[in-house]
Amino acid sequence: MLDALISFNKKTLILFPNIDAGSKEMVRVMRKKGVEQHPNFRAVKHVPFEQFIQLVSHAGCMIGNSSCGVREAGAFGTPVINLGTRQTGRETGENVLHVRDADTQNKIYHALELQFGKRYPCSKIYGDGNAVPRILKFLQNIDLDEPLQKTFRFPPVKECISQDIDHILETQSALAVDLGGTNLRVAIVSMKGKIVKKYTQANPKTYEARIELILRMCVEATLEAVDFNCRVLGVGISTGGRVNPQEGVVLHSTKLIQEWSSVDLRTPISDKLHLPVWVENDGNCAALAERKFGHGKGAENFVTVITGTGIGGGIVQHGELIHGSSFCAAELGHIMVSLDGPECSCGGRGCVEAYASGLALQREAKRLHDEDLLLAEGMSLKKEEPVSAIDLINAARHGNTKADAVLRTAGNALGIGIVNILHTVNPSLVILSGVLASFYESPVQQVIGQRALSSAQGIRVVTSDLEEPALLGAASMVLDYTTRRTY
Amino acid sequence: MLDALISFNKKTLILFPNIDAGSKEMVRVMRKKGVEQHPNFRAVKHVPFEQFIQLVSHAGCMIGNSSCGVREAGAFGTPVINLGTRQTGRETGENVLHVRDADTQNKIYHALELQFGKRYPCSKIYGDGNAVPRILKFLQNIDLDEPLQKTFRFPPVKECISQDIDHILETQSALAVDLGGTNLRVAIVSMKGKIVKKYTQANPKTYEARIELILRMCVEATLEAVDFNCRVLGVGISTGGRVNPQEGVVLHSTKLIQEWSSVDLRTPISDKLHLPVWVENDGNCAALAERKFGHGKGAENFVTVITGTGIGGGIVQHGELIHGSSFCAAELGHIMVSLDGPECSCGGRGCVEAYASGLALQREAKRLHDEDLLLAEGMSLKKEEPVSAIDLINAARHGNTKADAVLRTAGNALGIGIVNILHTVNPSLVILSGVLASFYESPVQQVIGQRALSSAQGIRVVTSDLEEPALLGAASMVLDYTTRRTY
Repeated sequence: MLDALISFNKKTLILFPNIDAGSKEMVRVMRKKGVEQHPNFRAVKHVPFEQFIQLVSHAGCMIGNSSCGVREAGAFGTPVINLGTRQTGRETGENVLHVRDADTQNKIYHALELQFGKRYPCSKIYGDGNAVPRILKFLQNIDLDEPLQKTFRFPPVKECISQDIDHILETQSALAVDLGGTNLRVAIVSMKGKIVKKYTQANPKTYEARIELILRMCVEATLEAVDFNCRVLGVGISTGGRVNPQEGVVLHSTKLIQEWSSVDLRTPISDKLHLPVWVENDGNCAALAERKFGHGKGAENFVTVITGTGIGGGIVQHGELIHGSSFCAAELGHIMVSLDGPECSCGGRGCVEAYASGLALQREAKRLHDEDLLLAEGMSLKKEEPVSAIDLINAARHGNTKADAVLRTAGNALGIGIVNILHTVNPSLVILSGVLASFYESPVQQVIGQRALSSAQGIRVVTSDLEEPALLGAASMVLDYTTRRTY
Repeated sequence: MLDALISFNKKTLILFPNIDAGSKEMVRVMRKKGVEQHPNFRAVKHVPFEQFIQLVSHAGCMIGNSSCGVREAGAFGTPVINLGTRQTGRETGENVLHVRDADTQNKIYHALELQFGKRYPCSKIYGDGNAVPRILKFLQNIDLDEPLQKTFRFPPVKECISQDIDHILETQSALAVDLGGTNLRVAIVSMKGKIVKKYTQANPKTYEARIELILRMCVEATLEAVDFNCRVLGVGISTGGRVNPQEGVVLHSTKLIQEWSSVDLRTPISDKLHLPVWVENDGNCAALAERKFGHGKGAENFVTVITGTGIGGGIVQHGELIHGSSFCAAELGHIMVSLDGPECSCGGRGCVEAYASGLALQREAKRLHDEDLLLAEGMSLKKEEPVSAIDLINAARHGNTKADAVLRTAGNALGIGIVNILHTVNPSLVILSGVLASFYESPVQQVIGQRALSSAQGIRVVTSDLEEPALLGAASMVLDYTTRRTY
């Protein structure tokens, strides 16, 4: 805490601890850090009561684990940073920001940045002082001849809290980072899910260049955010590969993103920006985006399946992501629907991804094109032009039966993969996301109708209407955690 | 509560409520039920303090929502039934049995049966009264010249609680019911997982005959349990079909158990036996059995796959079963591993069950036998004898390549089905259960080695060593819930 306060560089009044266990050690640390000589600090043993409440009322921020912070300071709307768990379970005003595991300078520094100089509505945890007139008014209004049934309601503090949420919705925002195979993108995302500004660069091939670019783009975005009246609360990162979100580490990534295994993303970014950082796999981010901003809102159990270049996804059960024991749950592209089947980029065979991904369709389109079988009446395509999944879909629409057969198999494979998910975790909703989503919606519904158990038929299959699931999901980690007001 | 007390038929002292909201209504109900005239009841408005503590100390049981029950009664070890949620969150002694949703006569009646006449060790929630000698002894033992660091520890109440758990382990037990396609089995299962006695009958074909037989077998077992010094705490039922365990209802069952859809199992059994009843699908029961008594002990995320006549299973995530949105999660036999493949009993095609279940292997064995291709050197089998999966395995072991090919495909299909589970929920452990489990262990491990993503390779695959997973799982629902001391 002292290190954080020293680097925060504001005039600070320190109250010496009471004569409790450990107080001598605290004084020793304060002496060692030189706070008594530091020009910003003044350390005192006692402040008379009348002066003390003046100080509490006018402080830019209070920090520590004193009950005065969680109780009395609320009456003045003074911002408070409550450290550790000593006050856990006590009712507090909204002026209190908890830093439960307050062991790092960095977290406390960020909490100071969030709280200092803020002003909260007075929290009425002791009531508003107007009980007597209210009781009188009530007594005057009722018929005292009849017996009364006692009823309860919570004190009317709702209003001031909702005012504060409006304020948060208007100004508070997240920095979202999306690390894809091709591009590195950073966006400022508002609490309401609006992408205020987006920055795109090619994703560098080496670890060093990539980290440097991420930091540069994040710093730039943070500075620009001020111009948009956005207060950046933290950084959320969506990345390809397997991620340990508790540690903020990319465990392993395929060749799609080079030099991207055993990478601690949280530490360098948090150190540079003094902001909390969350990291999650891109498939899981898409599911988080649906949960907060999309079709998944309010759904207890749902699955997002992303059909793009590859196939990925995320599974939400009881409102939370399933990560699994080694953070490789929801590898939905590698559900196998064939004992043999085409080779997959994972080294396996017969994976859904090997049938139904953009790459798989492109491979088939190229094969047909090479054999001069892709074109149909009404279509034109130069021999040398690279072909894509879209050309295949086009050809099928123009009556090319070979292209149609390929797409049927792809839809069938994806549908069966999704039925396998239904028979495993039984969600109430499947959200198809990614560029091919709308194309697959109807074949998937058809396969479910034909091949799922009747008890799983009640499932809804929809196409996502979010434009940037990875960025929105990354932002949602920041926005959800910070509004819970606990790191 | 009054209905339960009337049918419980013991001498009862009722304390009239204080003059609080609703007290008039309570008195009105008491009058209506005639408790003032009832020979078992005496209702009083006040008991002097000295007499009151005598009454508390000697009562067979206290019932209500008074704080005296959860606090003072503990000092005497008097059994208490605490109704509703008014006292939730308060520290209580182990003498208290909570009935949180106390809206049914039945639950309260059963709670009375469990608690009445019991005696608990005194719970020392106010301390044991020996603080002064302990402080003196401590002060005499330390060097008062040196400064001291304050440390904390919890009060030494562990001992008396563990004594009580020993008592529970010795005498408390569950009635387990297993409703299979062929047999109806009931067992008395002790807290340690020992099957004390087992009863087996053919499962009748009609709903009425089946319910009647279940009730008769349960009553008989409950009566016999007394001879084995077993105190039956409740009934756990494992059944084929899709189950809503919250309601205790079988939603739908296949033809394997006839007349077995939309069946409320809880009400008739609970009404007849005055015991709480839990109902769960047999695959889920097998997983619960592994969690409490088998390889799943202490595993956060694991999957049980049962290979018997059919294929089923259960998925445990964060220590709890995944049920899904319509209670059809973990239909692991109907994971499809082929776009086409053999027809399955579910109406689909290419399900794991259609390749690897006992029925599927029997079908293939019969086909080979009919074509005179099953026998290998050193084997004998009469033409008319019915063949089984075991004959197929035998033939393969004796060098029959056709039988071997069938088994290879089966092992491959099951392995791929399990890889699909790994890529969906990423457990740390797969437990194979059922008659074919040990046969499949090695093929499944092989397929995982070949076809699972490297990040999912760390999985352990083991064969269950539980002899009666369905019965043990059914019992575990009773034993786990009742030791949590909350319905």
